[in-house]
Amino acid sequence: MKALIFENELKQVEIPESECQNNEALIKIKMAGICNTDIEILAGYMNFHGVIGHEFVGVVEEVAGDSSLIGKRVVGEINIGCGSCEYCLRGLQRHCPSRNVLGIFQKNGAFAEKITLPIQNLFPVPDTITDEEAVFIEPLAACIEIFEQIHILPGESVAVIGDGKLGLLIAIVFNQFGCRVSLIGKHRDKLAIAAKSGIEIHQSDKEFSTKFPIVVEASGNASGLVKALALIRPRGTIILKSTYHGEVSLDTSKIVIDEINVLGSRCGRFGPAIRLLEHKLIHLDELISGIVPFDDYIKAFELARQKNTLKVLLKF
Amino acid sequence: MKALIFENELKQVEIPESECQNNEALIKIKMAGICNTDIEILAGYMNFHGVIGHEFVGVVEEVAGDSSLIGKRVVGEINIGCGSCEYCLRGLQRHCPSRNVLGIFQKNGAFAEKITLPIQNLFPVPDTITDEEAVFIEPLAACIEIFEQIHILPGESVAVIGDGKLGLLIAIVFNQFGCRVSLIGKHRDKLAIAAKSGIEIHQSDKEFSTKFPIVVEASGNASGLVKALALIRPRGTIILKSTYHGEVSLDTSKIVIDEINVLGSRCGRFGPAIRLLEHKLIHLDELISGIVPFDDYIKAFELARQKNTLKVLLKF
Repeated sequence: MKALIFENELKQVEIPESECQNNEALIKIKMAGICNTDIEILAGYMNFHGVIGHEFVGVVEEVAGDSSLIGKRVVGEINIGCGSCEYCLRGLQRHCPSRNVLGIFQKNGAFAEKITLPIQNLFPVPDTITDEEAVFIEPLAACIEIFEQIHILPGESVAVIGDGKLGLLIAIVFNQFGCRVSLIGKHRDKLAIAAKSGIEIHQSDKEFSTKFPIVVEASGNASGLVKALALIRPRGTIILKSTYHGEVSLDTSKIVIDEINVLGSRCGRFGPAIRLLEHKLIHLDELISGIVPFDDYIKAFELARQKNTLKVLLKF
Repeated sequence: MKALIFENELKQVEIPESECQNNEALIKIKMAGICNTDIEILAGYMNFHGVIGHEFVGVVEEVAGDSSLIGKRVVGEINIGCGSCEYCLRGLQRHCPSRNVLGIFQKNGAFAEKITLPIQNLFPVPDTITDEEAVFIEPLAACIEIFEQIHILPGESVAVIGDGKLGLLIAIVFNQFGCRVSLIGKHRDKLAIAAKSGIEIHQSDKEFSTKFPIVVEASGNASGLVKALALIRPRGTIILKSTYHGEVSLDTSKIVIDEINVLGSRCGRFGPAIRLLEHKLIHLDELISGIVPFDDYIKAFELARQKNTLKVLLKF
């Protein structure tokens, strides 16, 4: 089968089809999304070498175990836990110390004709959700994760730094939940998408006279945390969403003096994200910049790397 | 009156006696403690120039307003808020955006024969508390602050990084509250003090096979946060206590991936600290390395800077 492998460079190669082990399903990929994490992996993040890709929707072809899933359209949680540690037993496979992560750590990913995943990672996709929307379930779950981590008050003022795919999606989700959202970005076109939902948009982080109780850092680069520290009020919470390859130099005394809470946030549960899409509560059409055939992956990655691009989908 | 001023260098000078404004008290200092923050100020921290010192016990000499305090032995909260902003109204003068801070920011400090402070900052010291103990009320309140910020479960495992004055005091307080404390430091003598209370002591942070849900960083230098990140478990909380002059270079992806909570922590309320000392629940004798006459301040600071020294007190 064809797969996109990263080994020093990104290339399409022919590899043997995966076989499902016990309690695994073999899934034929229909569509997959390019995430910034994929682009960071190509820059060295996680030192991962293998098939990349972790946002997908596909159809179950084979199952080792329960056969009721065969033919079902599914999405899949990307963290594969051991199933027996204290994190897995609490439903937090995404923090299992011996986990593999689809297309990110020790597990071949979704930019391939077929993948395998444990059955318990799979979620059937309701018919009201299109393939294009289904690919967003993984990043949407990552946005909703913030609401699982901290108690966000109705009407709270929230600044989101970064108008990329993730920043926009976070702004849309917070807005959907009734927060007063200020989105800070550099791209007029991307900000305009947010403005349509009533999100306040800003092209500079210098425009604010009052500080925020919550700042979400989704800029995708090291300068975002420094900006977040300038926008946060005493005892406020900065949510760190960006993962990138490299280090940031930081004066931590501001964190101590203002008793700031800096909280990392990563993957979330799929259920709530599926529900928002199933009931048409979140609209994602404008976040899609292109749907590109899998074989045209070079063009797809070129497009994904452009400053004005949002989500690029690979169609199989 | 005599005062220790930092202006490029530390020197004892003669300055006019402070006069109390409305609602202020004039306090004659009996004893004052040298804190690491004082030493960091001499290295450039906060860019403060003036009379340093913020840990003290003294006797009220004059009051502009309520005279019932005259002759009382008092300690004082170091943050002087505006009294009318939303932080002050919530009893959080320590986060007032226009606050002055005794001996740290825009307010002459306690290494002087007399100081002024607003009456509402003062706490009478019960007779069962000695002068030596009273000087510890400010740093002890800063330790107890952690318990105001996060919910700490009985019996929780806590690592404390740093066996300096603050690290030791934090370890002792967590131990007092029933936590399982591991103190990591470099100084055999200091660690031995903690060991007597049943605190586990370690001379290397490499000795741990399991990770901690809570790590307190009180090392006083930039390497402490990197060490803390190596010791914390997924979804754990790192309490940042160290303030120092300079920046730290950090790979923040660990914070994001493991959803770590990095929480700054500074000053606390005096009431609970006074209560612990009043009822002899905390013993501090071994944390005192020397009591030095005020005029011998050069000797006192030399002693305070030595690696094996704990608290140095200035006696007036």
